[in-house]
Amino acid sequence: MAAVTAPKPDRNPKQDRSRATRQRLLEAAVSCLAEHGWVGSTVAVVAERAGVSRGAAQHHFPTREDLFTAAVEYVAEERSQALRTLPSRDRHEAVAALVDLFTGPLFRAALHLWVAASGEEQLRARVTELEARVGRESHRIAVEVLGADESRPGVRETVQGLLDMARGLGLATLLTDDRARRDRVVAQWARLIDEALDA
Amino acid sequence: MAAVTAPKPDRNPKQDRSRATRQRLLEAAVSCLAEHGWVGSTVAVVAERAGVSRGAAQHHFPTREDLFTAAVEYVAEERSQALRTLPSRDRHEAVAALVDLFTGPLFRAALHLWVAASGEEQLRARVTELEARVGRESHRIAVEVLGADESRPGVRETVQGLLDMARGLGLATLLTDDRARRDRVVAQWARLIDEALDA
Repeated sequence: MAAVTAPKPDRNPKQDRSRATRQRLLEAAVSCLAEHGWVGSTVAVVAERAGVSRGAAQHHFPTREDLFTAAVEYVAEERSQALRTLPSRDRHEAVAALVDLFTGPLFRAALHLWVAASGEEQLRARVTELEARVGRESHRIAVEVLGADESRPGVRETVQGLLDMARGLGLATLLTDDRARRDRVVAQWARLIDEALDA
Repeated sequence: MAAVTAPKPDRNPKQDRSRATRQRLLEAAVSCLAEHGWVGSTVAVVAERAGVSRGAAQHHFPTREDLFTAAVEYVAEERSQALRTLPSRDRHEAVAALVDLFTGPLFRAALHLWVAASGEEQLRARVTELEARVGRESHRIAVEVLGADESRPGVRETVQGLLDMARGLGLATLLTDDRARRDRVVAQWARLIDEALDA
């Protein structure tokens, strides 16, 4: 009974502050990577952007690799979660929502990380592992929002190809805003995917 | 008549040498970009790789942007030409050949150039224009090798989506060799495209 009236330990507010600091760092890291690329993205730059001391940033993320791989994973999870909790929709809307996952700052940040990792041994192992996790999660979500039955032959590869197409559309968006073209491609492929999944 | 017996002017061997030097530089530039990325790719590094003096390299390509955009365009044209002159094939082979355009050192080089261009104003305008030209050419070749009739509704977008998917597969190849997965996706999408183009 004593526990009920005892003052709350001050660990929780501290933990909350720590979690909030961590989130600010992760979000600042993704924006920084999306805007300035890997070369322009350091722990110091991100700490300043997040309004966090460099020491605090290094407490949360001892290395640059730790910070940026955690950032891409965190934001990818946030977006996946948001996609999952949206109300159910038709296949066209589902395809459009999946493609949208690959055209914003998160994709741009991940792209900078992938390209940097292709030439840096230390980063490469981390990013390859991250990419496998994020890729599996994207696939699970795609199957769910499309209502796809993977026990049927070809369905798994149809969904994988769609995610590859979304990634390619994201890459095309890197230099120019090609939304009009993308919308037409999405409309047509939503039709083809719909037929393929119901065939 | 005198012209017939006159010694050939020595301009042609010189022109041949100049053309050969230019080609060596362009090919070295693509390999260099694919292996070392934009930051590690300078005119001096490429000249050394091609066994050409730095002065000669700068005679052909006054700026770094000139050299690398010309290189990506040259190699893209070579590959497109090769694809065009292959014997006619079925749709599955055509889809596989198109996807192959996006998975080698050329795509890797182009990817480094795109990502660098997204953050460098001067390079960006050049690469955006280059990408539009190469993109239109890839589309023309895809229509040709697939035997697609673009006058029919949806066919243009079907072909564009395939090229976007090929680009996404190329991106997935950047960090890991996922050939086995790619082959399965290509087999399934070749079926979908075959049906869509004949529908």
